[in-house]
Amino acid sequence: MRILLAQINPIIGDLEGNTKQILDSIQNGREQKADVILFPEMALSGYPPEDFLLMPHFLEAVLKKLDVIIKASKNITVIVGLPRQNKNRSEKTLFNSAAVISDCKLLGFQDKVLLPTYDIFDERRYFEPGAEMKLWDICGKKVAITICEDLWQHSGFVLSTFYRRDPVLELKQLKPNLLLNLSSSPYSMHKFNNRLQVCLKTSATLKCPVLLCNQVGGNDSLIFDGYSLYVTPEGLVHCCKGFIEDKYIADLNKKSTTIRVIQHVLEDLYKALVMGLKDYFNKLGFKKACLGLSGGIDSALVACIASEALGSENVLAINMPSRFSAPESARDAKQLCDTIGIQYKEISIESSFQSYLDLLRPHFQDVKADVTEENLQARIRGMILMAFSNKFGYIVLSTGNKSELAVGYSTLYGDMVGGVGVINDLTKQQVYALSNWINRDKEIIPLNTIKRAPTAELRLNQKDSDSLPDYEVLDNVVCSYIEEHLSPQQIAEKFKYDLQLVDDLIKRIHQNEYKRRQAPPGLRVTEKAFSIGRRFPIVQRWT
Amino acid sequence: MRILLAQINPIIGDLEGNTKQILDSIQNGREQKADVILFPEMALSGYPPEDFLLMPHFLEAVLKKLDVIIKASKNITVIVGLPRQNKNRSEKTLFNSAAVISDCKLLGFQDKVLLPTYDIFDERRYFEPGAEMKLWDICGKKVAITICEDLWQHSGFVLSTFYRRDPVLELKQLKPNLLLNLSSSPYSMHKFNNRLQVCLKTSATLKCPVLLCNQVGGNDSLIFDGYSLYVTPEGLVHCCKGFIEDKYIADLNKKSTTIRVIQHVLEDLYKALVMGLKDYFNKLGFKKACLGLSGGIDSALVACIASEALGSENVLAINMPSRFSAPESARDAKQLCDTIGIQYKEISIESSFQSYLDLLRPHFQDVKADVTEENLQARIRGMILMAFSNKFGYIVLSTGNKSELAVGYSTLYGDMVGGVGVINDLTKQQVYALSNWINRDKEIIPLNTIKRAPTAELRLNQKDSDSLPDYEVLDNVVCSYIEEHLSPQQIAEKFKYDLQLVDDLIKRIHQNEYKRRQAPPGLRVTEKAFSIGRRFPIVQRWT
Repeated sequence: MRILLAQINPIIGDLEGNTKQILDSIQNGREQKADVILFPEMALSGYPPEDFLLMPHFLEAVLKKLDVIIKASKNITVIVGLPRQNKNRSEKTLFNSAAVISDCKLLGFQDKVLLPTYDIFDERRYFEPGAEMKLWDICGKKVAITICEDLWQHSGFVLSTFYRRDPVLELKQLKPNLLLNLSSSPYSMHKFNNRLQVCLKTSATLKCPVLLCNQVGGNDSLIFDGYSLYVTPEGLVHCCKGFIEDKYIADLNKKSTTIRVIQHVLEDLYKALVMGLKDYFNKLGFKKACLGLSGGIDSALVACIASEALGSENVLAINMPSRFSAPESARDAKQLCDTIGIQYKEISIESSFQSYLDLLRPHFQDVKADVTEENLQARIRGMILMAFSNKFGYIVLSTGNKSELAVGYSTLYGDMVGGVGVINDLTKQQVYALSNWINRDKEIIPLNTIKRAPTAELRLNQKDSDSLPDYEVLDNVVCSYIEEHLSPQQIAEKFKYDLQLVDDLIKRIHQNEYKRRQAPPGLRVTEKAFSIGRRFPIVQRWT
Repeated sequence: MRILLAQINPIIGDLEGNTKQILDSIQNGREQKADVILFPEMALSGYPPEDFLLMPHFLEAVLKKLDVIIKASKNITVIVGLPRQNKNRSEKTLFNSAAVISDCKLLGFQDKVLLPTYDIFDERRYFEPGAEMKLWDICGKKVAITICEDLWQHSGFVLSTFYRRDPVLELKQLKPNLLLNLSSSPYSMHKFNNRLQVCLKTSATLKCPVLLCNQVGGNDSLIFDGYSLYVTPEGLVHCCKGFIEDKYIADLNKKSTTIRVIQHVLEDLYKALVMGLKDYFNKLGFKKACLGLSGGIDSALVACIASEALGSENVLAINMPSRFSAPESARDAKQLCDTIGIQYKEISIESSFQSYLDLLRPHFQDVKADVTEENLQARIRGMILMAFSNKFGYIVLSTGNKSELAVGYSTLYGDMVGGVGVINDLTKQQVYALSNWINRDKEIIPLNTIKRAPTAELRLNQKDSDSLPDYEVLDNVVCSYIEEHLSPQQIAEKFKYDLQLVDDLIKRIHQNEYKRRQAPPGLRVTEKAFSIGRRFPIVQRWT
């Protein structure tokens, strides 16, 4: 039995294009003498389709494409993920399902049983849990079909949710010869190993091979890493490529040998951001990006990622000095552009800044300079970038990092403008780590950019450390609070920090919810990003 | 038996303040010789607390406050809504619950059975459905306790969700003498009548009185209207005040007479927006608002609402003319400010606009003027407003309406800036209707503002109708698509519109998802606002 893992990159709602990818993969499988073609979860609609699922005409269109796929399955078995109507009278009207198709016939559907409804997942908003686990007779084998989360409860990797059912244990009673899993399992920095453990545990419990086909590609904030897996009770047999489409034939007739893979965390992080950005542009039909390149490390890192993702010829960096900018800032920015070959422009904001100061002086008289004047500078820069965007069709890249976003060390409508926040989900320490990784063989990001004390250059001799604790401290507090939900007391104890400092930072995190709510979507690379996966009211008095 | 409906206005996470409101209400009930005090759903934590529910230390703090309430319940029964731990091993670790307390003892909890997970509701993200419906012996009566949604399935008012259980029918078997309901049921324009029908139907089925205590107040986008109800099988006996805290003693010993209430849709809409805005400011601890007052109808309406909500002395209107502004615009703006007594400033954007044109000319040479220059003007205005905000502590009010937001007829970081979108959920036609209602007795909003053809005044002789169809057409398409999920074909047929026109508008709706994602939160007044209740990907190819 030969099974093709078709690790494709669907576009949400692109039923025409996704169907074409599916048909092409079927054709490819046929050429490779595959018996079965396995696709990712929701491959037909793209995942997550969100509220398109609430539109009856969307679901009708999905069904029509399913018919096309059925007709294309002559002499071959196709297992493809899609949403489907639930005709029983139960809480939700849909199933997250796998269509099992063979030789131009629809054999039936296997519905997802475990519906993640936490973090970024809202599956209970749309779907009813599948009723029963059953086996499918495919090429004489008893095959279990599962969808993504269905495997995760069994290995204990689902946090703070304890599903009543464990589909793997239910399947164990049925003694399958093979388990197939359709996944759209999003990337986060340490997810790969968990996913592998999930498959190994399932395979060990069921004493049969496990094949997991994962979606690849970026969809808004979400990055799907691919890395589809072929696992046996003896271990990992094959791992597909990460961050790119891939196809692999698992030949169950052949004796398998196990391999080991080493995860390269920073390399993967870089690839994830590159692919996430590339797909954001490609799937929207945009080519060109511009960004403010300050000479600091955040925008330098974003420029590198953009140049890789979009091609250096499609990236414009604009350095926008003011009276507070050190000469080294523009010099470092220029050096980086020369190194990576992106276009560089320098536009002083002095005349605009002065015109605002003049305009506002009659209204601001006798009130001393404060954050208002700092924000004016950041906002003039935002306006210039947006003017280039409007005039020439660039998408502006936002360059804020997670540490800044957490405590609002950024200007709304200023440096926060943009279509996508490339490093929104990287702490400042991760920004340094990734920058150093980029420089691993030679100096790409200027060393001076890396070594300089971080500064927003919005007032004379300003340093980030005037307003923020050491980034190590800030990042520890942010991560423990955001990701682990520790209390201020627990954080203070864990790191031996002053409780007042921790309290103040957490208060800032909540106070700046209003800014984050208006931030561009950021590429998600951790288990808990500032995004739809973290939901807090703006108006609250807990802190 | 005397029951106090304590229609209070909790603040999310303000356990201290909410507990004080609860204790004060208990004291008030005691003074009024009440036997039972009934509070809204989640009165202790505020609703919706969102991801605060994921923090163990938050839940511990809730429990501590519950102890305080228990101790304060000497000789009286208190029924109060709160989140509580679910100690069974089941999917979610919490219940949305009512604590039943009597004479300093916790009698137990009644957990919510039906968990709305649609539109703005995410209850399955946190909560496990309650197991069983039971009756409580309170003052010798058999009392059923339910939470909000628990009643709605029975009367068929829940759309596109068909819960497997119907708590009202389950209770019918138990023959209660009285049903109590704790609600945090958000306002939308036609919700009141539905809520009343739900109570009448429940009362008719159970053949007993129904008392519903609803939260009042604004929490971020959500507006809770109060209007707590006392209903018997004969009809409505009492309806509490809308949009303000209220207390009412339902005396079940007295013979009740039924009343009729007439819903005043526009008056309620006005009150809703006023309360929503007021609470946004009060609960955040802000007092002062500023807005750009263009002379057009949208900002005029927002100025009226703000003046009512915050006091005219706390509102600053800034008119910011450019070379494209008609003299009547500033005149109308000034006239409105004089009428309603808010502060008025005029700041020309010409010098700043010119400085940008000069700055960008070298880069934009040979490219003709387009939307770039229009957006520059809107963004200069946004920057001026934000400068006043930063300097003096105003929150900027965003004045966009739902029709504009739908198709992106607005400038991101320009007229879209602000802390809260006051009329984000009103179509242009509703803006006119509410403005005319404000003028029902005398001219408050200048008639010229109402009569002029809408214009953004961003280029010479610009009219909204240059870029948009008639607002009647736009609003029909927007509402049918957003609220009813009709297909383009269905919409074209329903209104006899050209299919191409409908298609183009729907395409624009999706294309402008990226703008709306960065819009300030808007006050929700319809069943489907552009907010967390409507979730669509930015990157998609369905349209």
